[in-house]
Amino acid sequence: MFRKILLPVDGSEPAMRALRVGADVAGRYGAALTVLCVYRHHGPLESSLSMVRPSDPVPPDRALSDFAHEVVQAAAAELDRLGAVNVHTVVKRGHPARTIVAYARDNAIDLIVLGSRGLGDVEGFLLGSVSHKVTSLADCPCLTVK
Amino acid sequence: MFRKILLPVDGSEPAMRALRVGADVAGRYGAALTVLCVYRHHGPLESSLSMVRPSDPVPPDRALSDFAHEVVQAAAAELDRLGAVNVHTVVKRGHPARTIVAYARDNAIDLIVLGSRGLGDVEGFLLGSVSHKVTSLADCPCLTVK
Repeated sequence: MFRKILLPVDGSEPAMRALRVGADVAGRYGAALTVLCVYRHHGPLESSLSMVRPSDPVPPDRALSDFAHEVVQAAAAELDRLGAVNVHTVVKRGHPARTIVAYARDNAIDLIVLGSRGLGDVEGFLLGSVSHKVTSLADCPCLTVK
Repeated sequence: MFRKILLPVDGSEPAMRALRVGADVAGRYGAALTVLCVYRHHGPLESSLSMVRPSDPVPPDRALSDFAHEVVQAAAAELDRLGAVNVHTVVKRGHPARTIVAYARDNAIDLIVLGSRGLGDVEGFLLGSVSHKVTSLADCPCLTVK
């Protein structure tokens, strides 16, 4: 039933808890795991409007991309520690929920396992907005983890 | 990880699809399955305000209770057909989402598997309201099925 499992991560603790649940389900089903981190485009204009100006400026998009790569690497290391096999990592730029849903559809994902609150959901109403949108819009089953 | 799985049902097709996913997961984990149907209280006052008056009136609460029992029996029959073992059925009266969440908490449920749209969600915004509320409010992981 579940052969390809998608694990969207953002570096938050709920996402890491979801990762552990996803690893367990993948183990039971012999499923492949894809760890996906989506970062939002953050252009120079937005940067110039920001309150915080680093003394040694890195292009914001580059900084976010680097962070996203660190997040998926940390997730992959945790999956390795848990004994998960058949793992690969993907970093994408875009709108988080839409990008996750599109990735799942384009790659015939059977199950998305995600934290019910991530970094973007501190002020989320009820369910965090990203997980709510993904769960609503995805064609496949979604497993949300607190 | 998952030893006690809760399957809320309402007779809708998404709930039956969720039931089949839940049976599969229960099989992989050797988990017990509880089928739960919650019906709303519908008192004589609400009945008297209704547009539809049956010629042979059955107390509305009784009719809803009978329907809920039929729903869980149909679900249990489907689970039996799928080869699920360790199944039991529960009917409760109350607010659907709150009753499902409370049942899960009081019975140490590890996973709730539910349809992402049920009978009450025809006009639901994005995710159906009952599954959205359950997924938001439950302490345990929730698996939503389209």
